[in-house]
Amino acid sequence: MSVERDRLVELRREFHRHPEPAWREFWTTARIVSEIRRIGVDELYVGPDALADDRLAVPDAEELESWMDRAREAGGDPDVLDSLSGGWTGAVAVLNRGEGPTVGLRVDIDGLPRAESTDKDHDPVREGFRSETGAMHACGHDAHATIGLGVLESVRDSDFSGTFKVFFQPAEEVIGGGKPMSESMHLDDVGYLFALHVGLGYPTGEIVAGIDDFLAVTQFYTSFEGYPGHAGARPDEGRNAVQAMATAVSNLYGIERHSDGESRVNAGRVGGGTATNIIPEEAFIHGEVRGETTEIRDYTFRRAEQVFEGAATSHDCSADVTIEGEAPSAESDAELVDIVQRAAESNPDVERATGRGSIGGSEDATFLMRRVQQNGGLATYACIGTDHPGGHHTATFDVDEDSLKPGVDVLTDSIVAVSETEP
Amino acid sequence: MSVERDRLVELRREFHRHPEPAWREFWTTARIVSEIRRIGVDELYVGPDALADDRLAVPDAEELESWMDRAREAGGDPDVLDSLSGGWTGAVAVLNRGEGPTVGLRVDIDGLPRAESTDKDHDPVREGFRSETGAMHACGHDAHATIGLGVLESVRDSDFSGTFKVFFQPAEEVIGGGKPMSESMHLDDVGYLFALHVGLGYPTGEIVAGIDDFLAVTQFYTSFEGYPGHAGARPDEGRNAVQAMATAVSNLYGIERHSDGESRVNAGRVGGGTATNIIPEEAFIHGEVRGETTEIRDYTFRRAEQVFEGAATSHDCSADVTIEGEAPSAESDAELVDIVQRAAESNPDVERATGRGSIGGSEDATFLMRRVQQNGGLATYACIGTDHPGGHHTATFDVDEDSLKPGVDVLTDSIVAVSETEP
Amino acid sequence: MSVERDRLVELRREFHRHPEPAWREFWTTARIVSEIRRIGVDELYVGPDALADDRLAVPDAEELESWMDRAREAGGDPDVLDSLSGGWTGAVAVLNRGEGPTVGLRVDIDGLPRAESTDKDHDPVREGFRSETGAMHACGHDAHATIGLGVLESVRDSDFSGTFKVFFQPAEEVIGGGKPMSESMHLDDVGYLFALHVGLGYPTGEIVAGIDDFLAVTQFYTSFEGYPGHAGARPDEGRNAVQAMATAVSNLYGIERHSDGESRVNAGRVGGGTATNIIPEEAFIHGEVRGETTEIRDYTFRRAEQVFEGAATSHDCSADVTIEGEAPSAESDAELVDIVQRAAESNPDVERATGRGSIGGSEDATFLMRRVQQNGGLATYACIGTDHPGGHHTATFDVDEDSLKPGVDVLTDSIVAVSETEP
Amino acid sequence: MSVERDRLVELRREFHRHPEPAWREFWTTARIVSEIRRIGVDELYVGPDALADDRLAVPDAEELESWMDRAREAGGDPDVLDSLSGGWTGAVAVLNRGEGPTVGLRVDIDGLPRAESTDKDHDPVREGFRSETGAMHACGHDAHATIGLGVLESVRDSDFSGTFKVFFQPAEEVIGGGKPMSESMHLDDVGYLFALHVGLGYPTGEIVAGIDDFLAVTQFYTSFEGYPGHAGARPDEGRNAVQAMATAVSNLYGIERHSDGESRVNAGRVGGGTATNIIPEEAFIHGEVRGETTEIRDYTFRRAEQVFEGAATSHDCSADVTIEGEAPSAESDAELVDIVQRAAESNPDVERATGRGSIGGSEDATFLMRRVQQNGGLATYACIGTDHPGGHHTATFDVDEDSLKPGVDVLTDSIVAVSETEP
Repeated sequence: MSVERDRLVELRREFHRHPEPAWREFWTTARIVSEIRRIGVDELYVGPDALADDRLAVPDAEELESWMDRAREAGGDPDVLDSLSGGWTGAVAVLNRGEGPTVGLRVDIDGLPRAESTDKDHDPVREGFRSETGAMHACGHDAHATIGLGVLESVRDSDFSGTFKVFFQPAEEVIGGGKPMSESMHLDDVGYLFALHVGLGYPTGEIVAGIDDFLAVTQFYTSFEGYPGHAGARPDEGRNAVQAMATAVSNLYGIERHSDGESRVNAGRVGGGTATNIIPEEAFIHGEVRGETTEIRDYTFRRAEQVFEGAATSHDCSADVTIEGEAPSAESDAELVDIVQRAAESNPDVERATGRGSIGGSEDATFLMRRVQQNGGLATYACIGTDHPGGHHTATFDVDEDSLKPGVDVLTDSIVAVSETEP
Repeated sequence: MSVERDRLVELRREFHRHPEPAWREFWTTARIVSEIRRIGVDELYVGPDALADDRLAVPDAEELESWMDRAREAGGDPDVLDSLSGGWTGAVAVLNRGEGPTVGLRVDIDGLPRAESTDKDHDPVREGFRSETGAMHACGHDAHATIGLGVLESVRDSDFSGTFKVFFQPAEEVIGGGKPMSESMHLDDVGYLFALHVGLGYPTGEIVAGIDDFLAVTQFYTSFEGYPGHAGARPDEGRNAVQAMATAVSNLYGIERHSDGESRVNAGRVGGGTATNIIPEEAFIHGEVRGETTEIRDYTFRRAEQVFEGAATSHDCSADVTIEGEAPSAESDAELVDIVQRAAESNPDVERATGRGSIGGSEDATFLMRRVQQNGGLATYACIGTDHPGGHHTATFDVDEDSLKPGVDVLTDSIVAVSETEP
Repeated sequence: MSVERDRLVELRREFHRHPEPAWREFWTTARIVSEIRRIGVDELYVGPDALADDRLAVPDAEELESWMDRAREAGGDPDVLDSLSGGWTGAVAVLNRGEGPTVGLRVDIDGLPRAESTDKDHDPVREGFRSETGAMHACGHDAHATIGLGVLESVRDSDFSGTFKVFFQPAEEVIGGGKPMSESMHLDDVGYLFALHVGLGYPTGEIVAGIDDFLAVTQFYTSFEGYPGHAGARPDEGRNAVQAMATAVSNLYGIERHSDGESRVNAGRVGGGTATNIIPEEAFIHGEVRGETTEIRDYTFRRAEQVFEGAATSHDCSADVTIEGEAPSAESDAELVDIVQRAAESNPDVERATGRGSIGGSEDATFLMRRVQQNGGLATYACIGTDHPGGHHTATFDVDEDSLKPGVDVLTDSIVAVSETEP
Repeated sequence: MSVERDRLVELRREFHRHPEPAWREFWTTARIVSEIRRIGVDELYVGPDALADDRLAVPDAEELESWMDRAREAGGDPDVLDSLSGGWTGAVAVLNRGEGPTVGLRVDIDGLPRAESTDKDHDPVREGFRSETGAMHACGHDAHATIGLGVLESVRDSDFSGTFKVFFQPAEEVIGGGKPMSESMHLDDVGYLFALHVGLGYPTGEIVAGIDDFLAVTQFYTSFEGYPGHAGARPDEGRNAVQAMATAVSNLYGIERHSDGESRVNAGRVGGGTATNIIPEEAFIHGEVRGETTEIRDYTFRRAEQVFEGAATSHDCSADVTIEGEAPSAESDAELVDIVQRAAESNPDVERATGRGSIGGSEDATFLMRRVQQNGGLATYACIGTDHPGGHHTATFDVDEDSLKPGVDVLTDSIVAVSETEP
């Protein structure tokens, strides 16, 4: 017997009111933990126990502390919060149900650092669950956390035989959490992994059993360092970091396309300098490169490094490149795609059960998928269609709550089906 | 009889502890007003009464309010602070001393938005008067305000005959205050204007009677507007404002030199974009152009506008240019240069009395100088040499307090000399 | 009965010794015409009779005249040469063989404006048929002309019933000849069109029955016009066309990738200016854009036009864009692919008969293919594999002459097979 | 007694009909030598005997040979031409006239590689002495060679006592001949050096006795080397030399201005690439930097080298920089300026005798001036005003022939005056 629709809606709205950006999911993790305890599991790993050391793109201590304070004020369990100190967010819940395969479900839980719409027609405004934190669940990870908990409870109540693990992964939006979670030992015995996303342009009532074309991605932060000089009196004393950065931006987008497939570059956020009358001493590019394959991504990033070095040299500056996040490309396995598609076809709430689909973006679930596949297991990344008025990452994004329960049910049925196919 | 050295040092340290950036000189103005009242003047104009409407580069209301709050907490006179609301800082003090010429002295009073050194060898640290506001008097305007008050008191006690006005001008660092103060009516009857700066590379004991080569300057804020797009899934939907900005930066510095004399360009502060995975929708350049003459400055700015338009067109964006501050070029008049040089030569604390000098920068005192000169009057811009360990605008800049009293005395003597030369 | 291997080799070597670039194939056309006459056909259209008016990228009169002179000296038939005056090269040969379909074969005949290797290991050097013109057959069009003639002779001697036309197309390398040949009326009744290329990385013994992924392409010539100025004495009088061009190059490569598929840009040949001490008055970019679809190509070209306009504006110059050549994307039709593949499979010299293949380049055979397809006919573009030591367009490119006869035979058999499938 | 006006006009028109660019002044040198022999001198040094080894910007052998052939066809003395082989042009003529100072006169003799106007109103067209070589005397060096010969003859006939040398210097337009001529031993004993130019904006009838503000200059040729790749099929295999060059151009003009004075940069001639569909393998910038002082020029060139290296690195290419020509800055000495001014004042054809003047350009006469000055001697660079319809280096530049004789006379009188002032 599965969980109720109303319960899922209520939970999702709670998460929606408390969006927290990457590595700051303090309240969110505490709330997830309290719900896991209510459900009852055999093992529970929180924060540093759920992650390997290799976290990427962790904010500075002051920023973390400010969100931790907010989480405390919002009523997060103090003991759990203490265990998350330093931005060690996320959790792994384990059900040991006797003989059978080890099956994993991965959901991500972070929000985005952007303001939510105040439009009266925006459902969270009308229904009173708009964000209270300044951040926003603009990509549906509130629904993902909810579905993760829903499936955990449903599998608990099912005939599932084997071991079931739910990975509540932090920091997907900065592609920083997938790597350390994939390297924690919890994934090592997983033979079947399900990951999921809501929306992506697919409407409520449609389930896509396997997404395929994840672009490999590397996010970087390049800082240029020069030397200041008075722009009027002594411009020749300056070494201009903004000129270096601007040259790098122009050449970055000009990296030759690769003949093996799609590539992408973006200088998504840049800045530099201090005052109009000072030759700028410092500048930065916070950006990314992507590739249809990991090799194309690597080619593009290698060329980007040359661009940074050359632009710095041109202006007598130095450039320093830090990798902030990364994810490989990945493919869904046919056996699991079939299982999800059959589960979707037999679900009365699903109008359309699609086999394969495409998103053209990146995701660090690919780290977990690759890990399982390299260990000889199978993985798929399913999409739970949902009508969303605004696009992903925009101020008016929202999830159709009617899609929550079909999502929970199809995934639960798939997980149970896996346990039945393996003796 | 002149004011005492110790009194000047004490006052200068007070100002040094409370640096406030342009248009936010709330505590500073209040402190100046209280000192003017102690000295006793015939007329006093504060804030909106001291300035014409045409202020440039005023910060937004929130920023102003935050500094106003700080000024209140630091003990500024509430009534004076109220009169400065909206960033109407600065004051004009007037002594009416019977028949004779109208003589003006212009000093600037703002600090810089940068942190002060915490080095133990930095005098303000060792002597306990380091900045308490986060900003810094890194260009000696604390000494300027002090000298302005010192001269006011000394002239009061002198044989000066005529009208004497001290202009405590705000917002020099953003070249935003010179224009509205020059257009206030207080300058219209001034026949002789003295302006001054400490340091500029000249050592304690040297006075330069007239500075000449101010570069004309225009400060601008150019914003580029494009359209966002997902950098992975739909890059072609974006119109990339960061690419437009970077192209503009590269071409801005590439504007052809002018054969009639020196020119300068600087993209001193730039930024753009929001996230690594979004094609940047917005970007900006906060910069300046200068010219050895106003015509060269105008040529360079006209070319800069073409660069902005072209860069925007290249990336299907739009560009919007706002002039934030400006100042013309100016020259010191020989008659006043002679008067200051003679006063310096006869001062026992002055080791070297130089006639003409050069700084190679810009200053909006030129607005006041030009106004007086256009009305048929005379103006000079004197430099009071002072040993300064760090360069202007750096974290370790400091004023040698031994230069304060000679500065007050030479200027007072010059002002008295003017009243004696005119029947 | 097919033509002999030795005859093909001899003919190919003749063409190889006389490479002529686009629209300058005077000797080549005359030699083709003499061979056609030897073979004997029912109709023959030469030069202006073989082409519509809309030729692209025709060189100037002086250049044409110089190659015409060379063709005369090399012994080209004077009457034929006269008919080619003005760069009207190429020919269409027609065999009328009674009832049956109208089948076309298109081959291109131009060389490249580059020097051939003088390496002793380069076969044309060793065997004494290296280029005598300064240009080079570095892309195998000598083999194409030869195969075209070979197939004409073989079809003449075969059981083919219907009408057979061979299109000897000029100016493929500048994608300038495909359009006017496709618009001549000779193509209007063609129901089945074969085009071909040798090599493309496929070895001797392999035939690829249908190439699919032709990129749509537009070649352009953009000229920037500014104004000169003495670089020392009056740089501000200049309007710098080289700066405009350089800015355009940087931004051209930076045009955002399109999410619907591959795009390409190239500023393949650029230049500008006259002397080191003159601000450059003129500059140009001779380049191209491509797209996986015609729509992507059009998007990229539209953005390129903005780049040119913006770069010109940035430097107070003007930009003028001329389209020099273009070709759409195209696909091979399954029915003809099958026919060619079966013919290849049954040929004893063919070791590998591949169905579909890919080259990732552009070709103006697509104009002819599209025309036939739009008229309801079928087209395929086959590749005759050939070992080639150097890459296409390099100094050591060469054709394995063992591939000539299998090429002629497979195409002849395919053409005969078409006539047999249609009653 | 001085030479006749008509003789000077005739000679100048001969030179005008035979302009030869730098290091190709074969006919010109032969004609000068024949005239020197007619005049009769004590010593004559031609070609390699007149120059040190360090020639800059010498064209390749093929180019030299082609101009040598032309010189032979135009009737140049075969023996003299043989001695100029390899581009060793120019000559030094010496008159030994007993006791007295050694005085030098330097004139330059090369033309420019540009076409001359065919306008009927252009005097050389109307009078039938337009260029016959394709190049053009568009900067008056035909007049310079003529004046040099005229002064030689006039000094021969004068009371001059001492040694007089005329330096007929080649390759001024590429600033390539000044250095090797200054390093030949012929200059080592020269105590007084006169150099000259006609025109420069000064009208017929005006003589400027000393030009002062020569900018130091370095001309460079930078080649960028990458790797080719097919722009459609394998763009990622290419390393794009045109992108490197374009990046370098943008950044070259963006080198920070120097606070000590004027600087200049120019990418006067650029090019690269071979075909629209090949990623460009090679590109070049032929350009220059200048400075108000030699130090500013050196600063700018050092920064330019960083720009080249950085741009090459950015695109995985290499850059190679060759210095093609250079000249230091220089000043005219007051004593010689006075002598020339007095000679001009006493000449009946001179309406205006100006002391000092300015051109804002560069000249490699400065090498000779510096050498003499470093040896303790004096130098001046005089301007012989001449009305010129078109600007220097334009197609309609021309010299007013009425200025030739005053030029010869004033220089002769100055040279004689020098010999009289020194016992």
